[in-house]
Amino acid sequence: MAGRVSEVPPQGSDTGSLTVVGLGPGSQAQRTPEVSAALAAATDVLGYQTYLDLAGPFRPGQRVHASDNREELDRARHALSLAAAGARVVLVSSGDPGVFAMAAAVLEALEHAEDPAWHRVALHILPGVSAAQAAAALAGAPLGHDFCALSLSDNLKPWAEIERRLTLVCEADLVLALYNPRSKARPDQFARALAVIREQRTADTVVVLGRNIARSGEQLEVTTLGKLDPEQVDMRTVVIIGSSRTRRIERPDGGCWVYTPRYY
Amino acid sequence: MAGRVSEVPPQGSDTGSLTVVGLGPGSQAQRTPEVSAALAAATDVLGYQTYLDLAGPFRPGQRVHASDNREELDRARHALSLAAAGARVVLVSSGDPGVFAMAAAVLEALEHAEDPAWHRVALHILPGVSAAQAAAALAGAPLGHDFCALSLSDNLKPWAEIERRLTLVCEADLVLALYNPRSKARPDQFARALAVIREQRTADTVVVLGRNIARSGEQLEVTTLGKLDPEQVDMRTVVIIGSSRTRRIERPDGGCWVYTPRYY
Repeated sequence: MAGRVSEVPPQGSDTGSLTVVGLGPGSQAQRTPEVSAALAAATDVLGYQTYLDLAGPFRPGQRVHASDNREELDRARHALSLAAAGARVVLVSSGDPGVFAMAAAVLEALEHAEDPAWHRVALHILPGVSAAQAAAALAGAPLGHDFCALSLSDNLKPWAEIERRLTLVCEADLVLALYNPRSKARPDQFARALAVIREQRTADTVVVLGRNIARSGEQLEVTTLGKLDPEQVDMRTVVIIGSSRTRRIERPDGGCWVYTPRYY
Repeated sequence: MAGRVSEVPPQGSDTGSLTVVGLGPGSQAQRTPEVSAALAAATDVLGYQTYLDLAGPFRPGQRVHASDNREELDRARHALSLAAAGARVVLVSSGDPGVFAMAAAVLEALEHAEDPAWHRVALHILPGVSAAQAAAALAGAPLGHDFCALSLSDNLKPWAEIERRLTLVCEADLVLALYNPRSKARPDQFARALAVIREQRTADTVVVLGRNIARSGEQLEVTTLGKLDPEQVDMRTVVIIGSSRTRRIERPDGGCWVYTPRYY
């Protein structure tokens, strides 16, 4: 497996490569060596500016292409075009590119390829530690038993479907890791999601909020479903809502650990 | 965050430390630097033998404590006892210790501490790439949209509850990542789980099977719910069952990519 990155063809071959990498939550200490090796070997690096800032510094001669975070499919097409023209391209995601991130966008672009040469690109996807996993580890083990990961963004999914899914996973008593909880364009959705969850979970349900995990300004807060205020949450917040079994243990330093037991 | 490991107190202090680490799926290329640093700094390393084999080699003087995989709570208590006595202990899990692994067992042992000194241990949990994430990355992006992670083991949860959860998450149309799908002690459960899933998903639903991912003997197979035979699955297999939207793209080399679109 250590050889996966070296399978990328040398620069100058007719068709290049595209490696979609997960940087992990932010710190280099949580970035896998295969991702660091892919970044070092790239001729071209693409990504949202915030993620490029985490991925750098770059060496002279590496071409860095910043793009707007909203243009995921355009960025995927750009990456495939560069690779088809012979470049050794790395496309960066934060967290894991396979979890609500760039890997699905690249495969969507590939399925509807504008150029048959895209299918000859050597494509690799390198996983990373997600922000939810890093926040969970700081809090203890809230994802220690059955859980789900749901996106609250209705850019690509009807809101009614989001509410339906929330109702069912609450009924299944899964822990919830909520992605894309709230944005400036969708300020009220998190409150609407909370209203659905509150119908099924008690006010003392444990909630973990992680903001800027493994980055400058890292904040971890443990609260309850009853006390949670939607204003505490923004696009950079990982929200983990406990199941009926999720527990907290007080720590001598005044903090607490949160975990979901393995038993039911 | 890079400094997290160095917060561990020096060897010889009255109370030691316990760091619960995720090795990732198997290869060092997918292990985070903070986990490698914690392993290098340990006086004592505990774990199931298979995971110790992945974590090593160890340096002379490091004490290595192998234990049976079934004795998770005993191993957690042993780790806390050693740390309370001043050792710098690392407890290894494969994948992510926070996902169906040792972090929850350690917190369960801590909540019911046999010795108040356990609460003074400097406890850190370091996340890792899970086997499901690594299998997903090899296959494409099957976890690219809403998904759940469920354990099929009824050692600690009644089987009726497992079937109830499977029914609800299928109704929610989530992708399913199934952990602990089948063991020698529970040979028939995976077939029973499949029967529940087949009631709600069509025979052409995409299924990804990953076995020994990032380890010797790595196998990745893409099949369908209709063709899936429970005999293809054992305790070392990660099973990902697609949602109704999960798609496959044929590759020029005869293989395929699997992804779950971001849109609904």
